[in-house]
Amino acid sequence: MVDLTQIMDDEVFMAFASYATIILSKMMLMSATTAFYRMTRKVFANPEDCVTFGKGENAKKYLRTDDRVERVRRAHLNDLENIVPFLGIGLLYSLSGPDLSTAILHFRLFVGARIYHTISYLTPLPQPNRALSFFIGYGVTLSMAYRLLK
Amino acid sequence: MVDLTQIMDDEVFMAFASYATIILSKMMLMSATTAFYRMTRKVFANPEDCVTFGKGENAKKYLRTDDRVERVRRAHLNDLENIVPFLGIGLLYSLSGPDLSTAILHFRLFVGARIYHTISYLTPLPQPNRALSFFIGYGVTLSMAYRLLK
Amino acid sequence: MVDLTQIMDDEVFMAFASYATIILSKMMLMSATTAFYRMTRKVFANPEDCVTFGKGENAKKYLRTDDRVERVRRAHLNDLENIVPFLGIGLLYSLSGPDLSTAILHFRLFVGARIYHTISYLTPLPQPNRALSFFIGYGVTLSMAYRLLK
Repeated sequence: MVDLTQIMDDEVFMAFASYATIILSKMMLMSATTAFYRMTRKVFANPEDCVTFGKGENAKKYLRTDDRVERVRRAHLNDLENIVPFLGIGLLYSLSGPDLSTAILHFRLFVGARIYHTISYLTPLPQPNRALSFFIGYGVTLSMAYRLLK
Repeated sequence: MVDLTQIMDDEVFMAFASYATIILSKMMLMSATTAFYRMTRKVFANPEDCVTFGKGENAKKYLRTDDRVERVRRAHLNDLENIVPFLGIGLLYSLSGPDLSTAILHFRLFVGARIYHTISYLTPLPQPNRALSFFIGYGVTLSMAYRLLK
Repeated sequence: MVDLTQIMDDEVFMAFASYATIILSKMMLMSATTAFYRMTRKVFANPEDCVTFGKGENAKKYLRTDDRVERVRRAHLNDLENIVPFLGIGLLYSLSGPDLSTAILHFRLFVGARIYHTISYLTPLPQPNRALSFFIGYGVTLSMAYRLLK
């Protein structure tokens, strides 16, 4: 029987596990941020969510969209679109026996770029802050995919 | 050569594999549910989808949104936003050698909470049914992330 | 210590790694396609993105939606909804010791179906091209889930 706990002794895999957990936790924060803005701004998508704010027609006025909430939702969806390829390709890349320092450079760049992407999106910072951070994360994932297919 | 089939002998990993497969299959049901409502309610997003219901302007009236369809789509997106972190963090958590009963408790709570979340969303049940099931799933994933980073 | 590079000697796992990387790279292309259409058609979701095209009210007119861009975004979301279950279930399936030729048939069918789905969606080809390619990918994932739970 393979002792799976030994897999975590592999340094590249352990680094991947840490960075993947960090970036997924950051992504989960987007749900909390959306919930926070929905509550404080009273902007809801479902009738059952705004029952406490009034009855009948009075409650329906909270079924609306809001720039701030939509911005968080776009940032969240962009995270999902970019973190899913990172998780899949990054996991397989970690198992393909890459050089430790190269691997850690990839993981750090990706995590840093995605955190900066969220900051750029939510502040919002003027372009090309968000575009640059997007392309760094994108490039890192493609670089791992290239090494994996090679 | 590592005999990969032995990995499946690890009890925690086998439990994770089962619960992950169950929750992913449940998530896939959301696609079928969306398709079902689109067909029965004749609500489409693409012109090529409603050609069989008429030609030209007659078909265009089916390019619309519908409360029921949008509700299923929101539930599906919420699944995606929460199941992706569970898969990533849960996989790494399973490999980090956790206690079997603790791990199974985490997996069961998450799967139960997400199934209840879907029921709450689609029925819909009054709040805080959906909010509670969301936070249980959220908390389980954060608890695994915390144990992993520690 | 387990030498993780040996995992990649497992033929099924190596096949899964290749096909997963291919389909994730294809999915990443959808982000680039969206960006391409947003730039060439001047259709943006954020005020800070269209500053270079004018100031104040003049820039706001580019904050709009566009059929072409929305179509790419729907294709991208559909990818995400289907590729996430494939990655999760496919990874676990690869580790469950399946027959090599059966496994490769599953992976090839899925990747082929999803590439054809994107072509059908973006051209767009008349139905049932897109519906069929969707259901082939869907069926392949369910077939792997079934073998895994059994």
